[in-house]
Amino acid sequence: MTVSPLKEPQVQDKSTIQQAPLSAEELRNMNAYWRAANYLSVGQIYLFKNPLLKEPLKLEHIKPRLLGHWGTTPGLNFIYVHLNRVIKRDDLNVIYITGPGHGGPGLVANTYLEGTYSEFYPNISQDAEGMKKLFKQFSFPGGIPSHVAPETPGSINEGGELGYCLSHAYGAAFDNPDLIVACVVGDGEAETGALAASWHSNKFLNPVRDGAVLPILHLNGYKIANPTLLSRISHEDLENLFLGYGYKPYFVEGSDPEKVHQIMAATLDTAIAEIKAIQHDARANGAKSLPRWPMIIMRTPKGWTGPKEVDGKKTEDFWRSHQVPFSEMASKPEHLKLLEDWMKSYKPEELFDENGKLIDELAELAPVGDRRMGANPHANGGLLLRDLKMPDFQDYAVDVSKPGSTVAEATRVMGKFLRDIMKRNKHNFRLMGPDETASNRLDSVFETTNRAWMEEIYSYDDHLSADGHVMEILSEHTCQGWLEGYLLTGRHGLFSCYEAFIHIVDSMFNQHAKWLKTTRHIPWRRPIASLNYLLTSHVWRQDHNGFSHQDPGFIDHVVNKKASVVRVYLPPDANTLLSVTDHCLRSRNYVNLIIAGKQPALQYLNIDDAIKHCTEGLGIWGWASNDQGVEPDVVMACAGDIPTMETLAAADFLRQHLPDIKIRVVNVVDLMTLQPPTEHPHGISDFDYAALFTPDKPIIFAFHGYPWVIHRLTYRRPNHDNLHVRGYKEEGTTTTPFDMCVLNQIDRYSLADDVLDRIHRFKYERAHVKQLIHDKLIEHKLYVREHGDDMPEIRNWKWTGGSGVDKTHSQDNGSPSQEGAEGTAKSRS
Amino acid sequence: MTVSPLKEPQVQDKSTIQQAPLSAEELRNMNAYWRAANYLSVGQIYLFKNPLLKEPLKLEHIKPRLLGHWGTTPGLNFIYVHLNRVIKRDDLNVIYITGPGHGGPGLVANTYLEGTYSEFYPNISQDAEGMKKLFKQFSFPGGIPSHVAPETPGSINEGGELGYCLSHAYGAAFDNPDLIVACVVGDGEAETGALAASWHSNKFLNPVRDGAVLPILHLNGYKIANPTLLSRISHEDLENLFLGYGYKPYFVEGSDPEKVHQIMAATLDTAIAEIKAIQHDARANGAKSLPRWPMIIMRTPKGWTGPKEVDGKKTEDFWRSHQVPFSEMASKPEHLKLLEDWMKSYKPEELFDENGKLIDELAELAPVGDRRMGANPHANGGLLLRDLKMPDFQDYAVDVSKPGSTVAEATRVMGKFLRDIMKRNKHNFRLMGPDETASNRLDSVFETTNRAWMEEIYSYDDHLSADGHVMEILSEHTCQGWLEGYLLTGRHGLFSCYEAFIHIVDSMFNQHAKWLKTTRHIPWRRPIASLNYLLTSHVWRQDHNGFSHQDPGFIDHVVNKKASVVRVYLPPDANTLLSVTDHCLRSRNYVNLIIAGKQPALQYLNIDDAIKHCTEGLGIWGWASNDQGVEPDVVMACAGDIPTMETLAAADFLRQHLPDIKIRVVNVVDLMTLQPPTEHPHGISDFDYAALFTPDKPIIFAFHGYPWVIHRLTYRRPNHDNLHVRGYKEEGTTTTPFDMCVLNQIDRYSLADDVLDRIHRFKYERAHVKQLIHDKLIEHKLYVREHGDDMPEIRNWKWTGGSGVDKTHSQDNGSPSQEGAEGTAKSRS
Repeated sequence: MTVSPLKEPQVQDKSTIQQAPLSAEELRNMNAYWRAANYLSVGQIYLFKNPLLKEPLKLEHIKPRLLGHWGTTPGLNFIYVHLNRVIKRDDLNVIYITGPGHGGPGLVANTYLEGTYSEFYPNISQDAEGMKKLFKQFSFPGGIPSHVAPETPGSINEGGELGYCLSHAYGAAFDNPDLIVACVVGDGEAETGALAASWHSNKFLNPVRDGAVLPILHLNGYKIANPTLLSRISHEDLENLFLGYGYKPYFVEGSDPEKVHQIMAATLDTAIAEIKAIQHDARANGAKSLPRWPMIIMRTPKGWTGPKEVDGKKTEDFWRSHQVPFSEMASKPEHLKLLEDWMKSYKPEELFDENGKLIDELAELAPVGDRRMGANPHANGGLLLRDLKMPDFQDYAVDVSKPGSTVAEATRVMGKFLRDIMKRNKHNFRLMGPDETASNRLDSVFETTNRAWMEEIYSYDDHLSADGHVMEILSEHTCQGWLEGYLLTGRHGLFSCYEAFIHIVDSMFNQHAKWLKTTRHIPWRRPIASLNYLLTSHVWRQDHNGFSHQDPGFIDHVVNKKASVVRVYLPPDANTLLSVTDHCLRSRNYVNLIIAGKQPALQYLNIDDAIKHCTEGLGIWGWASNDQGVEPDVVMACAGDIPTMETLAAADFLRQHLPDIKIRVVNVVDLMTLQPPTEHPHGISDFDYAALFTPDKPIIFAFHGYPWVIHRLTYRRPNHDNLHVRGYKEEGTTTTPFDMCVLNQIDRYSLADDVLDRIHRFKYERAHVKQLIHDKLIEHKLYVREHGDDMPEIRNWKWTGGSGVDKTHSQDNGSPSQEGAEGTAKSRS
Repeated sequence: MTVSPLKEPQVQDKSTIQQAPLSAEELRNMNAYWRAANYLSVGQIYLFKNPLLKEPLKLEHIKPRLLGHWGTTPGLNFIYVHLNRVIKRDDLNVIYITGPGHGGPGLVANTYLEGTYSEFYPNISQDAEGMKKLFKQFSFPGGIPSHVAPETPGSINEGGELGYCLSHAYGAAFDNPDLIVACVVGDGEAETGALAASWHSNKFLNPVRDGAVLPILHLNGYKIANPTLLSRISHEDLENLFLGYGYKPYFVEGSDPEKVHQIMAATLDTAIAEIKAIQHDARANGAKSLPRWPMIIMRTPKGWTGPKEVDGKKTEDFWRSHQVPFSEMASKPEHLKLLEDWMKSYKPEELFDENGKLIDELAELAPVGDRRMGANPHANGGLLLRDLKMPDFQDYAVDVSKPGSTVAEATRVMGKFLRDIMKRNKHNFRLMGPDETASNRLDSVFETTNRAWMEEIYSYDDHLSADGHVMEILSEHTCQGWLEGYLLTGRHGLFSCYEAFIHIVDSMFNQHAKWLKTTRHIPWRRPIASLNYLLTSHVWRQDHNGFSHQDPGFIDHVVNKKASVVRVYLPPDANTLLSVTDHCLRSRNYVNLIIAGKQPALQYLNIDDAIKHCTEGLGIWGWASNDQGVEPDVVMACAGDIPTMETLAAADFLRQHLPDIKIRVVNVVDLMTLQPPTEHPHGISDFDYAALFTPDKPIIFAFHGYPWVIHRLTYRRPNHDNLHVRGYKEEGTTTTPFDMCVLNQIDRYSLADDVLDRIHRFKYERAHVKQLIHDKLIEHKLYVREHGDDMPEIRNWKWTGGSGVDKTHSQDNGSPSQEGAEGTAKSRS
């Protein structure tokens, strides 16, 4: 078989604008500044001592282990110096997002040159001693990571995992009309799913009320060991792709620094002017249509200005520059020389004075004060964070005169609360969701705002508008990225998602939680609003998103993170959901996971009791228990709305058929209370735990998630050997929707059966009741298979306190059958 | 503020080809066939009884709960009937991948019409009785799910979560030169990250050896409650976008079925002809460059042919058609009439004979036998699966004459084995990885194959070629999707990934594991090759991908899935990795997770011992234990390469300083052995467990992952109260790379300290040894902070059997310092 013939690359020089706006002096100075940044970048990767190369370079000056990424760094530095120029000239408000975040040395170098680094870290001073420490600390134990991280001034984008820079950039720009977010996207990163989807964020940016994003796609051609896809498609395809994404692409291409400086300066001038023109027009005349925002495609060599070859192998403009271009300093003395020549090619003696400080002529190129990108307060959003104006959540309470007898839809109630929050905080709060806001029954928010939409709007469209604050795109990645960017720049929000699909952002959650954890130890990073998730359409009430692609494992994923950062709440009804929501929206620096149902469901607590219960986090439900003053036979614990209902129904059933049985019902809202206080700050003491769960009685725990989560949280607790947990298990052998017949793992009959298996007081009645249970299970299964719905006695069950008689009213109001098509059973799939 | 003016949509009729190739009879018949499919689709969503509407429609004929998705279904049916035409005419080999998989009714309807459904499920016969069952079973307890699922004949793409169809399609096409994969992409789905990235898969498809993918982007305009982004950008932008992605887009637009039938037929003829021409040219003249493959953009109304309005609200061509267009049948009698009129508009009496069978004239339109898309064996890949030709893995063994004294890189050894597997199975095995094959030290495979690359190749490029079988794209989603598609069509493969980044595909793993679980209960689905993951560059040896974005939680995620489907292996060295790899590649219908290091590391077992150890899954390492014939003081257990080394070093240290101590070392390779046999088939009996771990001695367990995984697996095991697990915890307060100083959570000194905390036999010596331990910890920390590397005594430690003297040789060969730039410390970020 014939394969493609090998080619030599054509010189790519299809820059869109061929002008030279820089004066000779400007050009010389900007290039010198860039050389300084590159020098400091290489120094961080290689040098242990001798930072200014005042002595001949020796092996002892080299770090024992060489880590870091050179390849992307000169391009990042190049962009930084050019942004500095326009910021300073036009007094622009710009932050810099580093997609190729492994280029950490470049961002550290630039914030050091502009002075912010030494302000945040006085120990890293702007002199030879500071430079030595700057070099040593990089990727060194006790120092800083090799990528852009919370420790890096000016950053809101963790540079570890790739793909999220552009959604972060748009999140930062929303409701920040004066901000320009320059976002460098690496061509490797551009291959990821999250990044590929996020280009479409331009369709949500309103030039009237939002800031601008200037994407700079950096085509340096190579990843770790491969070319990048985008660098090897034709100029025309590349242009078409970004035209198709709705941008106006400007190409900046070349490898001769002097030429590329001129082209970049001209292009940046044009892009900034176009941004200003779009904004000016929209702000004067209204946002009439989706603007075509400019973007820059910068094609420069990987490892630009680094060694052309190492050991005879192509290095500059190739993947061998990706990381440390050469090492083996001990075994190959010529490498020491190569490094010395490379670093000296930047002529440090022209850049730094004899004390090691950047010379004044160059230092003046940087913006000053908060205009420095390392000092811009938007990149330390806690500085700008203001409390939400909150309505009183108690005003939205549903009336619960008797527990377990009336029905409400919890998230619909929450929607009204969110509506009034959004009304009071028009420029400070966004609700994100992958096309699920209405389906999740939060649609009351549309009484005060709309879905953000900048494309065409038809006369019959539903709550779309350019100034909406509900953000819907069918990409969980983009929703999450937008919200992170919005929060990290000092605003508030909530992400509502089907539980079935939240695993899509597992790794994004990871990075954000770790970011928060790290910032706890960085005094200058100010607390930001918590990242709040509402998971609904949950696994126990899924019409369509059945056993094939649902699981409650996001809880497991969250509790793996550091206790000081994560919170998990399972409010059992509407009033508890209100209380939890209020608490979460007021909190700072956490990830709050709230799981609550959207379907019509029984209500248990009036608002006063709900507040008390949520404040404690867990507690005995006295009205559902009959062990007052006596020893309980069993503790029936529950967490989650469906497990709570089934637990209560089981208790009701048992008390009806075994009137002597003494049952204590404990409900858990705040999952973290179960952990020992040494593991989580919300954990109750062992003494309190034993008081609630008894030192020696059987505990039947019905749980929303995987059962071992409860074991894991409690395995060091008293009475753990008596704890029996029922939860979600991957046992179903069919993909049929199971919510028609809640009977599965945590149903009332199986829970009652569990209780009977663990108490032995009713030696004669026991067999009769067990027989009844087993008959009911079979009867129900047959009924469901025939009718496609739960038996009426299950569907319409209400709390009777063991009397078997619902004393409130008896019409069928619990049936979810025959739901309307709008706003109810809409599932994504 | 002024916002966009509302507009009426322009009629979109910019079809690329305006021809009418169908005869009047063809057109009439194809339209009738489509009506039949639509009729059966509506019937599945609504009808409980009266399938042929022979009686006037009554409430009792309607299902009690209405579930399903109408909106996408008529479009899916339309495409199906058109594909049937060209398949039959040209005897094509085509499978159909349904991106909008919630359109399950359509795929069920079509496979029923072509006869495959009744062949797989004889109970659903092609008559009125069968049709009644077909309708009832849909989204009904004991029936079938509402989306395309393993139960659906002809499917390899679970229709639950969106975004993976196109990567599945390309995976199916690789190495299947005669296959055409028609892949319908929904415009909602097209907003997801995974889908957006996967368009670039065309850059990996070689027309000589691979089949073709024909993407059909179905713009029906709306998601659940929103327009789709792609449906509202301009024709020009849409065309540019797909030109930019490298395709040749053909538009098919309209709402008049007769017209659109003609345009679709003409367009499909053109697309098939272009595919054939590309393949013919490449197969005759070689794959000289990346072809521009055709694709179809089909813009037809959502809910096409459904009710135009419901209750006065726009329904057809709007999001109200997304799911069940109307319900409330009991409270709104006019809805019953609406349904009857709708269904009768398809004129079922013209389509089905009096027995309820499709009339012969229409049935003849479908292809026959295996050409029917529901019966194509590629969509039941187990039918085509052939065993791999396997070299003997023992031939790759590293020599281990004395345990714990020689060094090898485990994955490098595995790479040689993979090389020879790939050599023997040139068209049947692919290795996937996000640009990490060389970094993960599997680069021996490049001695026999290359990276697949269809774009330009430069003279200095490294192992790129059009016929490579190593698949590298910087998208974990695409890698995973390709591999799933490849496996589901009956081939073999392995996905190697950094542990830090594998969470990106958590939800894809979920769906695949659940697919496998479900197929166990579908007799006609034949077993496929297991999905094998190699996670390396793992959390304990990460140079760059530090605490900011790594965690070992994929293990937790995997063990949440059904035990019959998942396997987790932690081979501690090269020979055990070989044995595990051989086992996994021979297995069927599992997900195998293998975690192994790539760095130079001590070797413990010769190949015979490795085979025995891996066959057992866990066992006492006698050579490392000194409790033969006596009671051990402690069991030191370990799983994972670094935990194993640290456990051995701790045992060595303790035996040196407390010569009387009796230590048993137990190593676990197969994590599932720890669970009770009732939970997992690999679980050993409690009796065997107690024999290994003792009934009453303390157990110090060093584990690669989060410690509670071990507790969760063992909490019902004997002696659990004595089990103390050390593993990964989110405790680090710095993002500094920690692998320079392995001392963190599971280091040798901390493990030794744990042992001393739990045994009380050495009442006098104990305090001295503890003091020594604490001194060592401080000494090491200071050393690391100064030198940036582990103390030599740690870096160069070898197993001494407690003598403190390494009797083999003494040169420093364990140091990872000063690694070469190529193939070693290349990390993605």
